[in-house]
Amino acid sequence: MAAPVIILVEPQLVENIGMTARAMMNTGLSELRLVDPRDPWPLGEVHQQRMAAASSGADEILQNAKIFATLEEAIADLQFIYATTSRTHDMVNRIMTPRAAIPDMIARAAQGQKVGVMFGRERTGLVNDYIVHANAKITIPLNPEFASLNLAQAVLLIGYEWYQAQDQTPADYIHTGNSMPATREEYLNFYHRLEAALDEGGFFVTKEMRPTMTRGLQNTLQRAAMTEQEIRTWHGVLSALLGIPKRGQGKA
Amino acid sequence: MAAPVIILVEPQLVENIGMTARAMMNTGLSELRLVDPRDPWPLGEVHQQRMAAASSGADEILQNAKIFATLEEAIADLQFIYATTSRTHDMVNRIMTPRAAIPDMIARAAQGQKVGVMFGRERTGLVNDYIVHANAKITIPLNPEFASLNLAQAVLLIGYEWYQAQDQTPADYIHTGNSMPATREEYLNFYHRLEAALDEGGFFVTKEMRPTMTRGLQNTLQRAAMTEQEIRTWHGVLSALLGIPKRGQGKA
Repeated sequence: MAAPVIILVEPQLVENIGMTARAMMNTGLSELRLVDPRDPWPLGEVHQQRMAAASSGADEILQNAKIFATLEEAIADLQFIYATTSRTHDMVNRIMTPRAAIPDMIARAAQGQKVGVMFGRERTGLVNDYIVHANAKITIPLNPEFASLNLAQAVLLIGYEWYQAQDQTPADYIHTGNSMPATREEYLNFYHRLEAALDEGGFFVTKEMRPTMTRGLQNTLQRAAMTEQEIRTWHGVLSALLGIPKRGQGKA
Repeated sequence: MAAPVIILVEPQLVENIGMTARAMMNTGLSELRLVDPRDPWPLGEVHQQRMAAASSGADEILQNAKIFATLEEAIADLQFIYATTSRTHDMVNRIMTPRAAIPDMIARAAQGQKVGVMFGRERTGLVNDYIVHANAKITIPLNPEFASLNLAQAVLLIGYEWYQAQDQTPADYIHTGNSMPATREEYLNFYHRLEAALDEGGFFVTKEMRPTMTRGLQNTLQRAAMTEQEIRTWHGVLSALLGIPKRGQGKA
C-alpha cells in the first residue's frame, strides 16, 4: 500500500527539508516533493551539506525528492490532498484530526488512490490560494495558546500516526529476553519455600491473620510476573537470607 | 489532573533543552527536570540565548525547570516512572507503546499519583543503570531501520499522545465558519430549480434515463454538504449560466 506523498510548499530552510526527510524515514514515508523551495535546486555544496547534516542519514529520500515550480504541478497526479494547517480559515472546509485522517488515507491507498499531504512554509503556513487545492484540512490538536510547530515536527506527527496505524507492536507486554515467564509450578515452588521459611521464623504471629498475610505476599510476588531466571535468583536470595551456603561454597 | 513530569537525563545541547520546552508547551506539559546537564546551570549568556531561541517562546517552562545532580534526586518524589528507549535491553521489563502508556498515566494521575517520563542523553539514550529506576519502558514504534529520533521529537511524540487523550476536538467535521449548513428545504429549492432548468435545456434525453440521472446529480450535490451561503452562491451561478441578470443589474 502506497504511503502518502509529502509536499512541502515553499520551504525556506534547507535544514527543515533535511529534518523532514529524517522524520519521513523514521515513520516509513518515502516520497517527498518540494514546491518552489527558497534555495534553487540543485543546491550548492554548502546548502547541500547543511541539509544532509539535518537529515541524519535520510539521504535516499532527499535524492529522490522531486522539485516543482508550482503547487498545481506538484499535486497533478494525486487523487486526494490533505492540507495541514493550525489556523482556522474563513473557508468552508472539512477538517480532520491526524488520527481521523490516517484511516481515511489508508482506505484510499488500499483502493489504489494516490494521496498527498501538503505543508506550508515556515511561519506563514499554507495560504488560502493553496488550501483551496485540498480536499480536506488536517489540524493537529495542540495547546491553542502555543500551537506553532516546526515544519519537520508537523511532518513527524503525521508520519507517526501513519506508522502507528500499520504497526503491530504489542501495546503493553513484559519483555523477558532469553528467559521465559516462570510456570505456575516454578512460582509455587519458590512461594512455598518462602512461606515455610517464614513459618519457621515466626512471621505469622496469629493463626487468624495467616490467610490475609499469605494472600498479600502472593499478590505482591505475582504482580512482579517473574521469569524462570528471576525465580532462580530469588531462590538464591532466600538461601542467602537463611544463611544457607551456595553450592560449592564450603563452610569456613 | 497533573501532567507527567519530563526528565532529561544528561542533556548535552542547550538547543535540545529549548526545543523540548517548546514541544512541552505545544502539548500541555509544564514540569521539566534536568539531571546533570552538560553545560553548568545557571547557563552563561550565550547558552541561555541559544536555548531561548530554540524554545520559540516557551520561557515559562525553562524558567521553572529544576536541575538535579543525580537521577535519584530528580525522581525521588515520583510514584511511577516511565523510561523512553528505542533499544531492546537485556533487562526484563514492561514495555509499552506511547498510546498504551498514556491511559496508564492518566489513570495514575487521576488517583493523585505523580508520574514522570525520562529521556536519555542524545546519541546514547538511557543506560541500564538509569532504566532500572523505571517502572516501565516506553518504546515508540518507528521504522526499525531508522528509529533514532531527536531528543525533543521524542518528547513531542509523548506529549502529543498525552494531549490527544485529553482533547475534545471533533475528529472529522465540516467547518462552516459564520454560515450554517443548508437546511433540506434550502438545498431542495436549489436542486429543483437546477432540475427544471435542465429539463428546459433538454438535458434528460430519454424518460427512462431520467431517474438514474437525477439521483446521480443529487448524489454529487449532497456530498458537497453545502452551507446556506454556498447554496445562495450556486443560485447565482445558475442564474448567470441561464443568462438571468443579477438583481439591480439592468440590461444593456
